[in-house]
Amino acid sequence: MTPRLTLLTDFGTRDGYVGAMKGVITTVAPEVALDDISHGVEAGDVEGAALTLERYWDRYPPGTVHLVVVDPGVGTDRRGLAVEADGRLLVLPDNGVVTRVISSASYWRAVALENQEFLGPDRSSTFHGRDVFAPAAAHLARGLELVRLGPAVDDPVHLPLPPAPIRRDDESLQGQVIGIDRFGNLSTNLPGRHLQESVEVEVDGRRISAATTYGEVEEGALLALVNSDERVEVAARGASAAQLLGVEVGAPVRLIRPSAG
Amino acid sequence: MTPRLTLLTDFGTRDGYVGAMKGVITTVAPEVALDDISHGVEAGDVEGAALTLERYWDRYPPGTVHLVVVDPGVGTDRRGLAVEADGRLLVLPDNGVVTRVISSASYWRAVALENQEFLGPDRSSTFHGRDVFAPAAAHLARGLELVRLGPAVDDPVHLPLPPAPIRRDDESLQGQVIGIDRFGNLSTNLPGRHLQESVEVEVDGRRISAATTYGEVEEGALLALVNSDERVEVAARGASAAQLLGVEVGAPVRLIRPSAG
Amino acid sequence: MTPRLTLLTDFGTRDGYVGAMKGVITTVAPEVALDDISHGVEAGDVEGAALTLERYWDRYPPGTVHLVVVDPGVGTDRRGLAVEADGRLLVLPDNGVVTRVISSASYWRAVALENQEFLGPDRSSTFHGRDVFAPAAAHLARGLELVRLGPAVDDPVHLPLPPAPIRRDDESLQGQVIGIDRFGNLSTNLPGRHLQESVEVEVDGRRISAATTYGEVEEGALLALVNSDERVEVAARGASAAQLLGVEVGAPVRLIRPSAG
Repeated sequence: MTPRLTLLTDFGTRDGYVGAMKGVITTVAPEVALDDISHGVEAGDVEGAALTLERYWDRYPPGTVHLVVVDPGVGTDRRGLAVEADGRLLVLPDNGVVTRVISSASYWRAVALENQEFLGPDRSSTFHGRDVFAPAAAHLARGLELVRLGPAVDDPVHLPLPPAPIRRDDESLQGQVIGIDRFGNLSTNLPGRHLQESVEVEVDGRRISAATTYGEVEEGALLALVNSDERVEVAARGASAAQLLGVEVGAPVRLIRPSAG
Repeated sequence: MTPRLTLLTDFGTRDGYVGAMKGVITTVAPEVALDDISHGVEAGDVEGAALTLERYWDRYPPGTVHLVVVDPGVGTDRRGLAVEADGRLLVLPDNGVVTRVISSASYWRAVALENQEFLGPDRSSTFHGRDVFAPAAAHLARGLELVRLGPAVDDPVHLPLPPAPIRRDDESLQGQVIGIDRFGNLSTNLPGRHLQESVEVEVDGRRISAATTYGEVEEGALLALVNSDERVEVAARGASAAQLLGVEVGAPVRLIRPSAG
Repeated sequence: MTPRLTLLTDFGTRDGYVGAMKGVITTVAPEVALDDISHGVEAGDVEGAALTLERYWDRYPPGTVHLVVVDPGVGTDRRGLAVEADGRLLVLPDNGVVTRVISSASYWRAVALENQEFLGPDRSSTFHGRDVFAPAAAHLARGLELVRLGPAVDDPVHLPLPPAPIRRDDESLQGQVIGIDRFGNLSTNLPGRHLQESVEVEVDGRRISAATTYGEVEEGALLALVNSDERVEVAARGASAAQLLGVEVGAPVRLIRPSAG
């Protein structure tokens, strides 16, 4: 079967850095199928990349290799990791970008990228995406056993994720905005199962009614619904909820039961 | 033979939504080759996507599956369609984005995406690109018969395309700008065969001479020529005609024979 | 083995021009694996594309076909070229974009794209990327001999690269900024081997200390180091050196030995 390898970076494409990584990968694993996820992660945005990764890593079939290079901390003592989680393989810097994968996987194990045999021969001081992460990922795509890459790691860096939503005295549930997508939809850390039709969501003092789908409200109107990550999302039909509400990642969101008036 | 599947969306890549779709597709069809067309369609721009689709759908070999997700109208009664046209397969929302394909195909047939067997098992309320369109497209790439996806549809939504150019009293031909590309070239609905060397094109009161190629005019100068879609295009060598002329999609364009003064 | 073909253009993706090229390519070579390098080259930026190409062309394995379409000069007498360099194949306009490949290859040969048999049947006046370069590249990916495409060319257009750095009276080495990447790192034409710890780099009157990696300086601080192209780079940890220094491509950079005070 054709091995498959995905790429997520903050390199942009214009400078050819992603091209260099693809060249290194296909030299090691000529038959690999390469799928771009994105190279438009904001420079160094580890939390954003972790949320993006959460959306696709386990949608791919077992055996897929996911390469993520965001904020690798070249020249610091930051490790590179290879992780196996629920049958998928991930190669990424030990900066917390794997947090959401590990949190949701039913099992995982990790190793540090240390075995020189499977890293690039000439390692530059600036571009470990090409010289360390790409060759390691390519060897995994060719079928190399994870443990061959280096010693086991049982303490990958864990991102300080937003705290779990808090139940307040008035029975409302207090969470926050964890991401804003291209359409201006606000993803929150409120589990979707708490949203019922009778419920309202308060963002920045403004109350928004729950709905099942975008189609239930007028063009331009705000609604709260369960999104494809199974979280509560605040959206606006055909418009940007982020712009309408003027909020950013971290903004408090409160889920209010009708009795809490 | 390796099945091939192309993707055109307005999702951007940063949020991982396209990654999720690719994961779903490769789970169903592990051997598929995925070609990105673009994920930078303007949010909800069905007319722009229709023009983009027209440029590549039949350049690909028969058997290719083209997946298009722009403005799927999740939560409305908008159908999803699978279409076979001149041997290519298309999976897209029934919002008119297929209009230019159907207009130019020598034959086509369509079905509605209704057979639950070939859609995703858990359908979210917000992301039919991942849960409906991607699995349907992947099954087609694996060789599923079109008719297995659902009942025949003979009335796909048809976009109100700009009216065909009108011949006016003075023998000039009146059309309009239908698209502006990255370079600022103005694509019009005037068929290229009407452009001859002796002809001029008038945009917003300004007369522009016909040429055969960009190379015939000075850097920065405007020209009218037959573009790669076989339509009349107004361009500027090494510059943006759209900026120079200050016009937008829908602007009137008149093709003037010399006798018409 | 699966043939592999990479694409670098200034077309953007939104308009479907790249999609049209991919369709033409896969019609000729259905089994080809397509890797996007970038479609975000600035319109007509031949020098930028040459620097980008330098970063990946020989990272790919021998046999790879690299298709580059930037500023093809359609309608001028500019030739299209197919080049073999160190086992890789390149198809690109004869506008100098191949300069850095030829300068660094241990051997190369080139032909002009003239054999009508391997070009598109209906050539438009505006889109040789689709009608000339794409089919030629696809035929090479299928295994066509380079010489079948047209007559030998021994004088490809050579870009006027920045002059080699000059040794000045005070023993300092005078070069310039040749590229600025997405992160604001300044790539220079100063060979990395000249950078030692005792050395300083002067950009626009400001002196910057040499370091080995980003990790050696504080967040936001400037440093000079050897980059992944083995050239001297001026960077800022977690920040944009280009913004901090306010310089552009072409800005003078001086490498100063300590004795030169």
